[in-house]
Amino acid sequence: MIIDFIADYYKNVEKYPVRSQVEPGYLSKRLPESASNNPEPIEKILQDVQEHIVPGITHWQSPNYFAYFPSSGSIVGILGEMLSTCFNVVGFNWMSSPAATELESIVMDWLGEMLTLPKPFLFSGNGGGVLQGTTCEAILCTLVAARDQVLRIIGRENITKLVVYGSDQTHSAIQKAAQIAGINPNNFRAIRTTKSSLFGLTPDSPLSTIKSDVEAGLIPFFLCATIGTTSTTAVDPLGPLCKIAKKHSIWVHVDAAYAGSACICPEFRHFLDGVEDADSFSLNAHKWFFTTLDCCCLWVKDPSALIKSLSTYPEYLRNKASESKLVVDYKDWQITLSRRFRSMKLWLVLRSYGVTNLRMFLRSHVKMAKTFEELVASDKRFEIVVPRNFALVCFRAVPSVLSAEQANELNRELLESINASGKVYMTHALVAGIYMIRFAAGGTLTEERHVREAWKLVQQHLEAILCVSF
Amino acid sequence: MIIDFIADYYKNVEKYPVRSQVEPGYLSKRLPESASNNPEPIEKILQDVQEHIVPGITHWQSPNYFAYFPSSGSIVGILGEMLSTCFNVVGFNWMSSPAATELESIVMDWLGEMLTLPKPFLFSGNGGGVLQGTTCEAILCTLVAARDQVLRIIGRENITKLVVYGSDQTHSAIQKAAQIAGINPNNFRAIRTTKSSLFGLTPDSPLSTIKSDVEAGLIPFFLCATIGTTSTTAVDPLGPLCKIAKKHSIWVHVDAAYAGSACICPEFRHFLDGVEDADSFSLNAHKWFFTTLDCCCLWVKDPSALIKSLSTYPEYLRNKASESKLVVDYKDWQITLSRRFRSMKLWLVLRSYGVTNLRMFLRSHVKMAKTFEELVASDKRFEIVVPRNFALVCFRAVPSVLSAEQANELNRELLESINASGKVYMTHALVAGIYMIRFAAGGTLTEERHVREAWKLVQQHLEAILCVSF
Repeated sequence: MIIDFIADYYKNVEKYPVRSQVEPGYLSKRLPESASNNPEPIEKILQDVQEHIVPGITHWQSPNYFAYFPSSGSIVGILGEMLSTCFNVVGFNWMSSPAATELESIVMDWLGEMLTLPKPFLFSGNGGGVLQGTTCEAILCTLVAARDQVLRIIGRENITKLVVYGSDQTHSAIQKAAQIAGINPNNFRAIRTTKSSLFGLTPDSPLSTIKSDVEAGLIPFFLCATIGTTSTTAVDPLGPLCKIAKKHSIWVHVDAAYAGSACICPEFRHFLDGVEDADSFSLNAHKWFFTTLDCCCLWVKDPSALIKSLSTYPEYLRNKASESKLVVDYKDWQITLSRRFRSMKLWLVLRSYGVTNLRMFLRSHVKMAKTFEELVASDKRFEIVVPRNFALVCFRAVPSVLSAEQANELNRELLESINASGKVYMTHALVAGIYMIRFAAGGTLTEERHVREAWKLVQQHLEAILCVSF
Repeated sequence: MIIDFIADYYKNVEKYPVRSQVEPGYLSKRLPESASNNPEPIEKILQDVQEHIVPGITHWQSPNYFAYFPSSGSIVGILGEMLSTCFNVVGFNWMSSPAATELESIVMDWLGEMLTLPKPFLFSGNGGGVLQGTTCEAILCTLVAARDQVLRIIGRENITKLVVYGSDQTHSAIQKAAQIAGINPNNFRAIRTTKSSLFGLTPDSPLSTIKSDVEAGLIPFFLCATIGTTSTTAVDPLGPLCKIAKKHSIWVHVDAAYAGSACICPEFRHFLDGVEDADSFSLNAHKWFFTTLDCCCLWVKDPSALIKSLSTYPEYLRNKASESKLVVDYKDWQITLSRRFRSMKLWLVLRSYGVTNLRMFLRSHVKMAKTFEELVASDKRFEIVVPRNFALVCFRAVPSVLSAEQANELNRELLESINASGKVYMTHALVAGIYMIRFAAGGTLTEERHVREAWKLVQQHLEAILCVSF
């Protein structure tokens, strides 16, 4: 019954409005005020899911979903999730289910090799990988490890002097992680990027900021470089940034949440050049790697740095295997004690697709984005705001008569009009004062026809707006 | 195919050794060195799961699993997980899937009412509930909120003066959360408990510690009280502790990770007396509430305290609904940005069981533990170490000729012998120098016959050990 439900959902997902059209509070009007005392049959519950939940879903799995970044599930990803749910183990340490720990280590080495990550990030090179829930957790863990490395030298009382670096395009996860870790919120430096460097950091842009912080008696300790920023998929130059960081003993984390997946294709691997001098690297397999939420892959060169900060070993968890030091206890590599068997779905995706097919699918998404980009470029009423790096196209309408502010307003209106149609869903970015529409290809069900139809829709909505306005 | 696999797994789970019997490194010998280039059929993969993964699983779902605390999945919990995996939405804010947010708020109010939590913890009373992954996250979030509340008054530079309180039986999550949040590790106070208070805090036990901290110029700010400690399910007295805390403006978090579920039964609700003066309360539905991992329910009286510490609002997430302030954006109530649709499984469990049945099942587990307790008590070679509160029995063998140390060694040997048999799995605690065996009933598939057989096994293994030793 549930399998039928899921099959039907995927069969029909294209028909639903992509962005949910409900109003705030819609659901409490439809559900009872309290839990029922008596059991209800699954049939009835599934019927309610269809009637009351589905309308409130924004359909991330729709082939017409081009918002944010994709959340590219797959059938085999779902099967993997089902298997780990079936076993429902609480894999805090090796003992609590050896297969969960060992499969994770193996799969992280496999994926690391597919990315040609430098050996020191792999278990086979004395580093290692771990599956976190999301990049937010990966960044928090590495930031805390880096913080404690410094505090052990300079003393706890100097925590207020620590400074974190990123760009004005770095994901908000870094500021939030710093805030959680007790770093002074005034000590986050969002180094300015500009259109001339395509909104990436320039090789020496952090230099002056670091220098003036040091002169002010502050202590630089963490830098987050991004491969594929959230707004425009900008790429920071890893090599030069790591060189600067090394001089100041700054931990460099590379956030490749979205774009990291593409780097299993040789033609994209160059974006990771320089990663050999970073300390940690992460990507979200649940974004663009066919693995359902959540599944963030984090590799570190020095697992002991994580363990020193995150280890607990209460009596009730003591066991022979942990004492032997022959095993990995992943609880000491993450925030939480309990952990799900996430490697199962990643293993299934890797095996069921195979490396060749994974590359093919990623390339097909890039090709779809390229098609969309060409369509935009061929219409003089629009412009590509920044050149495309991966499968995201940032564009906007630019009727010539408008001021910068009017152009922003027009694109805001255009996007809302497109999304209100329910036929596709895209989101926006506002970078250096420019409001742009983001078209993120990468849905597992998306085909070229969806891309072409999406473009037609954009044109139609622009025309409708311009007809009314002028 | 996968459904058949899952059905077979549950049919056979009783036959597998409960605690996995593999040696460290077993899996890398069985799997290839790198990911395959070509796709592999699901049949082959499932066969490998059966042959290579299942032996490395410690079977938390076995009816003979009595270790740690239960991880009580259920068929309907699995269905709920499947549905949320099917939709695979990234529910960071209301807009990204209104149903995910609204169902969570509704279900948290339902469950709060089932627990008769005071109104100020519910949305309907201007508080509110949120689903975290685990208690570790719940504690970290509340601790950071409490920290920042104080730092806003006393200034950031005083972070090194903040002090956290718990007992020597409080879960290690509290120390880890404090460590992550940048609290000086020397400023965690594990207040000593004793057997005379059944390893719970006494009403005024934190008083002298708090007083001397204040005299030393330190600033108390967070206290974690536990309902059902990990080692022995001890209960801290909420009322008196909250009273002390209030005097010093200390945030009180109530960790009822395991035992909270039982409090939906009126006869157990008294353990929560005093919660009305606490600031936050959490329980793990994935422990003893038929909901698969992960699903921690956290209620707070003042959601704005969480939001002030954990909110980010980058441009690309801006949307009309959030601006309207009519909606909850749960990203601001937790560590991570992305979040799974966890309320689906909790909703399905509540509806499919119904409150009456849920109580019945919880009571049946308590009854099984009582049965086991009576069996232990009727055998003079054993003793119950602390009276049972819920469905955990702490016991040990106490042959009269042995010293305290010898008794510990004997019980250690006994437990290892029992677990090595693969027939059941129990774990241990070491409290006030006493090594005890923990028998945690609560497996969804466990019946009275499993409990009786487990007890027979304990007796047999003791006899075998005594025969060899003497």
